Amino acid sequence: RYFHFCKLPGRVMGIRLLRFTSVVIIVLLLVAGALTALLPNIKDDKMPNLRREPKTQSQSALDSFTLIMQTYNRTDLLLKLLNHYQAIPHLHKVIVVWNNIGEKIPEEVWNSLGPHPVPVVFKVQTVNRMRNRLQNFPELETKAVLMMDDDTLVSAHDLAFAFSVWQQFPEHIVGFVPRKHISTPSGIYSYGSFELQNPGFGNGDQYSMVLIGAAFFHSGYLEDFQRQPEAVYALIDETQNCDDIAMNFLVAKHTGKPSGVFVKPVDIRNLEKDTNSGYSGMWHRAEHLLQRSYCVNKLVNIYDGMPLKYSNIMISQFGFPNYANHKSKM
Amino acid sequence: RYFHFCKLPGRVMGIRLLRFTSVVIIVLLLVAGALTALLPNIKDDKMPNLRREPKTQSQSALDSFTLIMQTYNRTDLLLKLLNHYQAIPHLHKVIVVWNNIGEKIPEEVWNSLGPHPVPVVFKVQTVNRMRNRLQNFPELETKAVLMMDDDTLVSAHDLAFAFSVWQQFPEHIVGFVPRKHISTPSGIYSYGSFELQNPGFGNGDQYSMVLIGAAFFHSGYLEDFQRQPEAVYALIDETQNCDDIAMNFLVAKHTGKPSGVFVKPVDIRNLEKDTNSGYSGMWHRAEHLLQRSYCVNKLVNIYDGMPLKYSNIMISQFGFPNYANHKSKM
Repeated sequence: RYFHFCKLPGRVMGIRLLRFTSVVIIVLLLVAGALTALLPNIKDDKMPNLRREPKTQSQSALDSFTLIMQTYNRTDLLLKLLNHYQAIPHLHKVIVVWNNIGEKIPEEVWNSLGPHPVPVVFKVQTVNRMRNRLQNFPELETKAVLMMDDDTLVSAHDLAFAFSVWQQFPEHIVGFVPRKHISTPSGIYSYGSFELQNPGFGNGDQYSMVLIGAAFFHSGYLEDFQRQPEAVYALIDETQNCDDIAMNFLVAKHTGKPSGVFVKPVDIRNLEKDTNSGYSGMWHRAEHLLQRSYCVNKLVNIYDGMPLKYSNIMISQFGFPNYANHKSKM
Repeated sequence: RYFHFCKLPGRVMGIRLLRFTSVVIIVLLLVAGALTALLPNIKDDKMPNLRREPKTQSQSALDSFTLIMQTYNRTDLLLKLLNHYQAIPHLHKVIVVWNNIGEKIPEEVWNSLGPHPVPVVFKVQTVNRMRNRLQNFPELETKAVLMMDDDTLVSAHDLAFAFSVWQQFPEHIVGFVPRKHISTPSGIYSYGSFELQNPGFGNGDQYSMVLIGAAFFHSGYLEDFQRQPEAVYALIDETQNCDDIAMNFLVAKHTGKPSGVFVKPVDIRNLEKDTNSGYSGMWHRAEHLLQRSYCVNKLVNIYDGMPLKYSNIMISQFGFPNYANHKSKM
């Protein structure tokens, strides 16, 4: 080809082209060099660091979590809570599961009061189902999910600490509300809290579930939840309850260990009474607790065994809020 | 042969022998049957269950621990503590490291007041060294070691719970006394407790060591300790101090994680003032804390880096002693 160029009219044209070509090549090399310098450093694909070092605002998938909050008939509480939760450290995004069928999402209000620290996605539902919040949402980018009921306020301090605990126990449900089952001589299980008899393994009480209405867990469990026996979905739909018990069964079965790790909250509040809607949560229904005992037994049938395991580990934050909260008389 | 027997004098002799032989055979079969019925059932060789189920008195290597208590000039406290500790659940054996050089062990007293629930071995030492307790004693049969100072009384409840926690975190030092190091702009480290500035990772305080004078740890670490750089032994001998800091360095280096897990004690007592010997512990020496800061910096040199990592996890027992000790205002 070189010789072809040389055949063009005159040596002058050939030299110009050569100069032009050289300039183009040099410019391209400079641009390439600049691009190389701008490439991000290769980061080690580390496991979540056990020690939470102060981070920049880079909210990578390992270092941040997605809040999933399902809401029904308490939009005033929802908006109050969103103002609080949108500013929690390490929050990546909020997914609001909108169970107010046929009602418009408050997107206008939300946008008019922007800008907001993180994206908030409203997922409009077609049927008001308790298990809507357990879908594997495509908007979910983080490994960690924080699931909160739409009437529960947990302090930022508690959430920041519990998130760091979850990072050390990523296969567990790490949360603030412990519950247990007990077995009876008849073999029938009963569901409850501290008011029930201790399971009898040494001193003190035990818990075998951590409720997902105020807890961190791995987003992979939402995927797993899509692959459960149909009877599980039927049970949750029939009772409009027990999705959290089902999740604990799922996690316990998966790990062979206690499903949850209980973090004792310093400041957790139920805002139910503050709502203008007059709507009070499902747990006020007369049959609520009986339903949950019923669910435990049904799930044992469905899963052909009792996978839940007991734990008596209670985790608190060292030196917070009281800087000497670990002192004992010595 | 049958025909040979028949050749014996008379058919009568033959019939008797036949009858006798048959009886012998039948008896042998009955005995064999009885032995088979008495054979023990084959048991699964299970991993230690995360849930501590009530056990029989079979103290297998996985389900029990060895108490190692070093003693110097406080035999009255030693005997008081032995009465308490000898009855702790899941205790396999006690090893008393006798640093009273030239003094007779109280074996006569001990035996005269028997029988005792567990074997107690007195290991007579030739030199009064702090690190004598960190030998890899041949009498040690369990995976778990409980190390206690000879002036520290921890309740059985606390020990039973902490042992169950250790079983869930076997690579950590699980104990009741947290401490930390802090770094300073000069790069020099300082050792201390909650009175020191927080390391500055979010809210609250952090600890980076759990002292071995009241803690469970894996017996394998005693083996590892025998293989440390000579400079470590020299440092401990020079200061008669810091063996516990050295152990924390060892464990942190080994695991790449925080060395300890802090269990908040309900009832821990220092019996120092109760001794008749007039001897008060090493930690009353004026230079004690300064020595420990010195040790931290020396160990960083020896190990060519700071392996200690921070944790803010504080573990308590759910529902004990107060059965609703997990309740928060909700």
